[in-house]
Amino acid sequence: MKLGAIEAGGTKFVMAIGNEQGEISEKMVIPTEHPEITLPKILDFFKNKGIEKLGLGGFGPIDINRNSSTYGQLQKTPKTDWVDYPLGEKLKQELGIPIIIDTDVNVAAMSEAKWGSATDVDSCLYITVGTGIGAGAYFQGKTLKGLSHSEMGHIKVRRHPEDTYEGTCPYHKDCLEGIAAGPSLEKRWGKKGHELADDQKVWELEAYYLAQALTNYIYILSPERIIMGGGVMKQQQLFPLIRKNVLEMLNGYVSSPYLTEKEIDRYIVPPGLTDEAGVKGALYLAMNE
Amino acid sequence: MKLGAIEAGGTKFVMAIGNEQGEISEKMVIPTEHPEITLPKILDFFKNKGIEKLGLGGFGPIDINRNSSTYGQLQKTPKTDWVDYPLGEKLKQELGIPIIIDTDVNVAAMSEAKWGSATDVDSCLYITVGTGIGAGAYFQGKTLKGLSHSEMGHIKVRRHPEDTYEGTCPYHKDCLEGIAAGPSLEKRWGKKGHELADDQKVWELEAYYLAQALTNYIYILSPERIIMGGGVMKQQQLFPLIRKNVLEMLNGYVSSPYLTEKEIDRYIVPPGLTDEAGVKGALYLAMNE
Ligand SMILES: Nc1ncnc2c1ncn2[C@@H]1O[C@H](COP(=O)(O)OP(=O)(O)O)[C@@H](O)[C@H]1O
Ligand SMILES: Nc1ncnc2c1ncn2[C@@H]1O[C@H](COP(=O)(O)OP(=O)(O)O)[C@@H](O)[C@H]1O
Ligand SMILES: [Zn+2]
Ligand SMILES: [Zn+2]
Repeated sequence: MKLGAIEAGGTKFVMAIGNEQGEISEKMVIPTEHPEITLPKILDFFKNKGIEKLGLGGFGPIDINRNSSTYGQLQKTPKTDWVDYPLGEKLKQELGIPIIIDTDVNVAAMSEAKWGSATDVDSCLYITVGTGIGAGAYFQGKTLKGLSHSEMGHIKVRRHPEDTYEGTCPYHKDCLEGIAAGPSLEKRWGKKGHELADDQKVWELEAYYLAQALTNYIYILSPERIIMGGGVMKQQQLFPLIRKNVLEMLNGYVSSPYLTEKEIDRYIVPPGLTDEAGVKGALYLAMNE
Repeated sequence: MKLGAIEAGGTKFVMAIGNEQGEISEKMVIPTEHPEITLPKILDFFKNKGIEKLGLGGFGPIDINRNSSTYGQLQKTPKTDWVDYPLGEKLKQELGIPIIIDTDVNVAAMSEAKWGSATDVDSCLYITVGTGIGAGAYFQGKTLKGLSHSEMGHIKVRRHPEDTYEGTCPYHKDCLEGIAAGPSLEKRWGKKGHELADDQKVWELEAYYLAQALTNYIYILSPERIIMGGGVMKQQQLFPLIRKNVLEMLNGYVSSPYLTEKEIDRYIVPPGLTDEAGVKGALYLAMNE
């Protein structure tokens, strides 16, 4: 059976055709523009390819409650062109096949648990630090959903005493996403993330904020592995800084062999699927319906 | 079948004998003292009562991983007399029956979902604000467990600019528990919580900290209901203050009918089981093995 998969991100859409073994036969990446420009490009890619179902991991917030009349509709996203856009419904109408929807980060977590960096444990957290900050949790065979989906990037962490940058989040100003996602790096330091690679203080501050968030996630969720991806995490020097800060902040309180200097390199890790976690997860979503 | 149940708290142990319908026939409450004083009292209560299994909801941190060699052992608890105490193993040896262990707050969440304030939803969070601050989560039929159990009381929230109290947590000083649990109220204001009932600024500060924590829990877990219990929450005036702060902090970001002025009274609620949530949950734990 041929299946479609979309990883819908704030910067780009990754689209793929695959099969039930998780193998991808065709792939295309397009920039995220106004929905009226992006939708026709999506339809062009998927039409007449014989796909029977389509899984979509979408940037949030997006309605993933199947009993809801607005299932698959974007909500109050900082990408204002997309607020209230009924992406799921549009795809269903135009392609005439079932569309299965979860958040981009939930499908990435599921995908890493099946094929990536968390195949040996029963739970994991996948965090992306890119245009926004989001995280998805996979526990006991399911992605975590309740009232709505997680919005882990919008928690507040304590400000560093020397950092007075006001923050970019249109809803909360200086929530984690507002002070630590890619766009905040650019606004605070006047250069894009990749141009700041050699500036040690940039990554120390970034690690301070991300480690606080991870510490909260560990206290609240206790995942058996934490996977960090997204554009900003391409700065590999962040990993040792984050690990060191997390151990200091936990201060030995949570007893686990993973949360030790010796083992933390195997606990906070990069994605195993490089850039394909999202789109392979979306394929997995379609496979499992 | 006769079953035993223990709610082991930092201040008191509640013990009960019950049946598989969740009915309690006998109950006793004892203060939490040194384990060598408390254990004999527990054994006195349960011996020769014909119970076949015992469920225990324990204050944390406690090892709840059944594959662990230290299953049922207390860990780095602020109650220093109890650090590394093998409570589960002692009970098993002395009573000669299976002992099933989860955290006090996980069993309370389960109990509220089955008999209390969350019978109409599929997930809930139970938070206790007492000698410590702890929370348990119940999602999709199970309590949340991963690397270890949750330690939600130890997250850090932003300090109020006018509050400089250093905090009581032996591991993190001014984590949430360190600045908002019962003992911190007493140390900050010089009187016990119940003696501060009429002091508006005490409860405004308390609500400010607790609401920040709830907001984080909502972003991270998205529970369908939040139940707040424990000694400090006996100050009922906290509920409206917390609800108001949570709505302000979320700033409309999470779309849910519950997270509105009209409905939040049904979202953040007191326990439905008054003081029996813990011990009935422990009974449920024994029932389900
Ligand atoms: N090598 C890099 N180093 C630091 N930041 C980067 C790097 N590459 C991309 N970024 C930043 O990451 C963000 C884009 O994140 P990405 O994960 O690629 O996309 P999205 O989150 O939109 O799906 C931008 O803010 C960009 O500046
Ligand atoms: N009515 C009250 N108002 C405010 N604080 C209270 C009240 N009753 C108890 N407390 C505080 O709650 C804490 C005890 O919490 P409790 O939930 O009863 O026990 P534990 O957490 O030890 O199981 C103490 O610090 C006590 O001062
Ligand atoms: Zn925000
Ligand atoms: Zn603490």
